[in-house]
Amino acid sequence: MDINQIIKKIAVDAKKAAGVMGRCDTAQKNRALTTMAELLEQKADWIFDENRKDLEGARKAGLSSAMVDRLTISEKTIDSMSKGLREVASYEDPIGTMGETRVRPNGLRVSKMRIPLGVIGIIYESRPNVTIDAAGLCLKSGNAVILRGGSEALHSNQALSEIIGQAMEKVGLPASAAQVIPTTDRSAINALLAQEEYVDLIIPRGGEGLIRFVVENSTIPVLKHYKGVCHVYVDDSADLSMAQSICFNAKVQRPGVCNAMETLLVHENLAQRFLPGMAKQLQAAGVELRGCRKTCAILGNITPATDSDWPEEYVDLILAVKVVSNMEEAMVHIERYGSNHTESIVTRDFDRANRFVREVDASAVLVNTSTRFNDGGQLGLGAEIGISTSKLHAYGPMGLGELTTQKFVVLGEGQIRE
Amino acid sequence: MDINQIIKKIAVDAKKAAGVMGRCDTAQKNRALTTMAELLEQKADWIFDENRKDLEGARKAGLSSAMVDRLTISEKTIDSMSKGLREVASYEDPIGTMGETRVRPNGLRVSKMRIPLGVIGIIYESRPNVTIDAAGLCLKSGNAVILRGGSEALHSNQALSEIIGQAMEKVGLPASAAQVIPTTDRSAINALLAQEEYVDLIIPRGGEGLIRFVVENSTIPVLKHYKGVCHVYVDDSADLSMAQSICFNAKVQRPGVCNAMETLLVHENLAQRFLPGMAKQLQAAGVELRGCRKTCAILGNITPATDSDWPEEYVDLILAVKVVSNMEEAMVHIERYGSNHTESIVTRDFDRANRFVREVDASAVLVNTSTRFNDGGQLGLGAEIGISTSKLHAYGPMGLGELTTQKFVVLGEGQIRE
Repeated sequence: MDINQIIKKIAVDAKKAAGVMGRCDTAQKNRALTTMAELLEQKADWIFDENRKDLEGARKAGLSSAMVDRLTISEKTIDSMSKGLREVASYEDPIGTMGETRVRPNGLRVSKMRIPLGVIGIIYESRPNVTIDAAGLCLKSGNAVILRGGSEALHSNQALSEIIGQAMEKVGLPASAAQVIPTTDRSAINALLAQEEYVDLIIPRGGEGLIRFVVENSTIPVLKHYKGVCHVYVDDSADLSMAQSICFNAKVQRPGVCNAMETLLVHENLAQRFLPGMAKQLQAAGVELRGCRKTCAILGNITPATDSDWPEEYVDLILAVKVVSNMEEAMVHIERYGSNHTESIVTRDFDRANRFVREVDASAVLVNTSTRFNDGGQLGLGAEIGISTSKLHAYGPMGLGELTTQKFVVLGEGQIRE
Repeated sequence: MDINQIIKKIAVDAKKAAGVMGRCDTAQKNRALTTMAELLEQKADWIFDENRKDLEGARKAGLSSAMVDRLTISEKTIDSMSKGLREVASYEDPIGTMGETRVRPNGLRVSKMRIPLGVIGIIYESRPNVTIDAAGLCLKSGNAVILRGGSEALHSNQALSEIIGQAMEKVGLPASAAQVIPTTDRSAINALLAQEEYVDLIIPRGGEGLIRFVVENSTIPVLKHYKGVCHVYVDDSADLSMAQSICFNAKVQRPGVCNAMETLLVHENLAQRFLPGMAKQLQAAGVELRGCRKTCAILGNITPATDSDWPEEYVDLILAVKVVSNMEEAMVHIERYGSNHTESIVTRDFDRANRFVREVDASAVLVNTSTRFNDGGQLGLGAEIGISTSKLHAYGPMGLGELTTQKFVVLGEGQIRE
């Protein structure tokens, strides 16, 4: 079989399995998830062996130690994957739930029932734990899933897929509800993106290049975010120590993720009082500052920011700093350079807080708290499968609920349309 | 300017206008809508003149009388467009509304605020009233809209667009919030589908060919339905006269629309009692029946259905009829040939009704009522901009609410992430 035939077969089998998953009850899905957790623990040694093949390949290919690190499955990775699966098993099942019923003047009772999306394709890069985390969420929400991980993780992903399949079959569910694409051939991605008839949603996770490639080549709907250029705007009415604590947390607590602050915007009335202490604390934590003209004038010995700094997602201990003359200028800056991901204001002014919340266009707009809270777990959705900055279907973290949709249910007693 | 530059300018202007629309208050949007309604009435004669140019072109081009009919703007069309705009003005404004607030263990208050999608592109075929109806819904929900109607309706659409623009400016809103693409050049569609940076959603309305073209060529999310192959399944427990009345309504009340019944599925225990009377009533209304082998055996003198009948959307007074041995067979038939649009069961059996509702995958699943009710107005959403059979974002009729999304709003008192 050529690659297109292989992928089509996977998609057709997934569609069939999605029918079974959509109809199966919560207890059975939960048994599958906890069985996966058990098998992961029981077969950890075998998984390490398979993972070692990938690690050797990676070293031979000269991958960076950061890449090798991401690729590694340790005892801790196994624990975290098992714990994740048990946690997802404990979540409330969204499938079949119904909201309010509206009664129409003719007596028709109209409501909506939550149903799975169907078949979800996940295209991701190196971390093999995504295979388990993503499969857990997709299966719990009654979907089938097709997983395409990084080519450097193929052995690891196939081992994990084998575990998933064994667990599914043990509880009487189709192994084809979660399939890993068994090839590193890049044309497999194109083939997957062409299965509009069988695949309902594609979620790409990884660098901007991968994501743009997927969007440009898919006729299937795609949920994604390109990048996270997140701002904190410190208003002149802000509580200074609160502002300092929030900004430090937003930049330093985990600089390598998409909801970390990349640019700090400071009201000019406050800049002189706020920036020196803030800079000292950030620099002590190893943060390199790149400032606008006014910032440099206040702080002295820092790198001047250039035009390329404002749209930049550093994902690192680097921070651009800009002094603005008011909140309007901050909002214009955010509209121009932000990525619709996460934007925060620190203020004590009621009207400005409300206006910032209303007018700033981002998947999460925060007042007096750290950008790092734009996360499914932190916002109470449970584990997330990613963060969407496109507005269709989901805007922000996507948990179980965002892997479902709703159909109309209409109950009558013989009503006909006049 | 070449066509790409023209379209890009339209898109850039629309994006800018979307910012204004997203922030403007309900009263101002409503004033714009009612002003449009007034101007339509005041300038009806001019609109008729412009429409006449299209009608003459259509006759010269030898378009069918049905096409010419669809293209015609009459006094009645003006009334209906004005009435539609006033109705949309009376709807509750979804923008800025917030749902429940969840309080996290750390005290963060998390809620969601409803916001516009941004810029919506509508690509449609002949009827010029879509220009007004679609613009009204998009503007009320705080969006900007780019309209691309059928080339045969260009003069009419430009006249209507002129009216919209005048009304917008009269109330201090940007005319560029609703723009008609001023060319019949087909490459304008490709150019529009490439404006991912500025356009947030594309809604194609028209034949399956147009819709498939849009899906294949767009990097922007698309909401659409390809076709409506809707079934009524008459269970052996059905109330016979109710079943007959529902089936007659579903087929005959308006056969040319997507929620009309195309195939009737009848339980074999009932077929002998039900089909002869049903057939007589349908045939008296001019319906041509095409039956499976068993149906033909019961009814005698009707056309045998072929394999090409079951997936067919007749949009006409034609009905395929199939006798099934039980509900399972009906559901398998629906899964195979249905289009995820509208499916109805007529039954008195509680368990079967529940199972049909749970397991049938369609944007609306109905019990004991006519498929014709899958419609925004009938289901209580108000006017609709179309029906989606894709599951992302919206499944079923799309009203004002479906032209919006939600962002997270997080209110803190200095919380940081540990």
